[in-house]
Amino acid sequence: MRDFSQDHDWLSINTATVRKQRGAEVPLDRIIDQCAERGVRAISPWRDQVAAVGLDKVAKQLKAHGIGLSGYCRGGFFPAPDAAGLKAALDDNRRAIDEAKTLDAPCLVLVVGALPGALDGKAAYKDLGRARSEVRGGIAASLDYAREVGMPLAIEPLHPMQAADRACINTLEHALDICDELDPERSGMLGVALDIYHVWWDPKLQQQIARAGNQRLLAYHVCDWLTPTRDLLSDRGMMGDGVVELKKIRGWVEAAGFAGFSEVEIFSALDWWQRDGAEVLDTCIERHKRVV
Amino acid sequence: MRDFSQDHDWLSINTATVRKQRGAEVPLDRIIDQCAERGVRAISPWRDQVAAVGLDKVAKQLKAHGIGLSGYCRGGFFPAPDAAGLKAALDDNRRAIDEAKTLDAPCLVLVVGALPGALDGKAAYKDLGRARSEVRGGIAASLDYAREVGMPLAIEPLHPMQAADRACINTLEHALDICDELDPERSGMLGVALDIYHVWWDPKLQQQIARAGNQRLLAYHVCDWLTPTRDLLSDRGMMGDGVVELKKIRGWVEAAGFAGFSEVEIFSALDWWQRDGAEVLDTCIERHKRVV
Repeated sequence: MRDFSQDHDWLSINTATVRKQRGAEVPLDRIIDQCAERGVRAISPWRDQVAAVGLDKVAKQLKAHGIGLSGYCRGGFFPAPDAAGLKAALDDNRRAIDEAKTLDAPCLVLVVGALPGALDGKAAYKDLGRARSEVRGGIAASLDYAREVGMPLAIEPLHPMQAADRACINTLEHALDICDELDPERSGMLGVALDIYHVWWDPKLQQQIARAGNQRLLAYHVCDWLTPTRDLLSDRGMMGDGVVELKKIRGWVEAAGFAGFSEVEIFSALDWWQRDGAEVLDTCIERHKRVV
Repeated sequence: MRDFSQDHDWLSINTATVRKQRGAEVPLDRIIDQCAERGVRAISPWRDQVAAVGLDKVAKQLKAHGIGLSGYCRGGFFPAPDAAGLKAALDDNRRAIDEAKTLDAPCLVLVVGALPGALDGKAAYKDLGRARSEVRGGIAASLDYAREVGMPLAIEPLHPMQAADRACINTLEHALDICDELDPERSGMLGVALDIYHVWWDPKLQQQIARAGNQRLLAYHVCDWLTPTRDLLSDRGMMGDGVVELKKIRGWVEAAGFAGFSEVEIFSALDWWQRDGAEVLDTCIERHKRVV
């Protein structure tokens, strides 16, 4: 297992972690500068943050700082109540792939979607099997284009508590089943983004990480599970503040051949998003060295 | 599949559903009377509610009304930081088995526990594998006594969002693996309590229900998953108000041979626990007939 204690060469910052600082939205170009000041070598930005600053401007700024991407957030949300909606989702994913290419991302992260409308409390249908079928179809179609341009797709299994509204792929096993079906040759073009927040509880985690192997492990996200957890979406903990066995899981991931970044992604409306961005980033670096 | 539309013969009320009425705690004897008034044939009471009224008094009252149990809530919480704690948990489970026997319950439901102390935000350790090993040991030891007195144990897989603090068995597959290990002969003395709130999201649900079969399906709990869900513990929905495909899942359960009660268990601090108990029970009956 790699020694992280001496530097933060393998730390990446998912920009959602500091998108709000002291409760206020901070533009991506400012976040990139904050990361550059601290020698952070990689980030994973969100599409809306990139769009707000401008795609080409972000690409240039990253290049100037020598900062790479550990992933691009995010494509997905495939299910829809009708054909027009399904088509719109595919078009949008094609644009996301193009953006990821412009930013030279190693992969586009897919939060695949679930019951359409459920995010607004108004599910258009309840058939989870249908949603999963639409997700499979959406990934297959997007994969065709992704192969064409050379942009790997990383399915992110989301925690089962988000099965209704955000992603109906909820275990690593389920994600890998889809990978094996759509990319049996393990081409490197389809894999998973493994976020410990979503999968830490899974009794089959170690076994499925070994099954994934290096060709499928395209991204690795860290934070922590707090007790109590006060909100289903945005009460994630800073690494070390919760109950997840971070080093044990990284050991499994590295044993499977993963040698990329540990990307910190913390949604924390009640705590870290209320703090100063410098404090948050400095804490990420310190925890990365000590507990990840 | 049984027709529930004409009566509520197969409705059971988990007494947690009406333990608070208009925001105030209601004693179990009053809840039993409310159920009897409505011709409810079965309930599933909680140990603390029984203790507050008195075990023998509750047993007599149930007999007088001709009300049976669909389960007894609950044993479990096996993991502990030390040997004394592990021993205390086993003793407590033995008492729970005796109480279940006195009340003539068909099974004792096990919420198996997880990281000891996590429920108070102070996990004594983070090793989830150790907790799972202690759970396995606790079930094995309790099963010996359960066999002796003839009280089936029903492992309840809890939603993965409760893996840290309430139960570290989080999928039906995991629960059945333990059943097969400890009771390979499928004696009927070890099985599962299947609560749709905890398992509805699972892509392997149908397959694992078929695997469970009638010998393992000891109890069936219903409510609904709301979007949004505002709290990890007590924001469950009334059947029909959420996104769970209730009839589809009951179809799977009945195809596996289950022919028992549909037990309504709704923790709802923000909604149903604030309402009048009569309204809650009448709504349970109406929804049982129409959507379960």
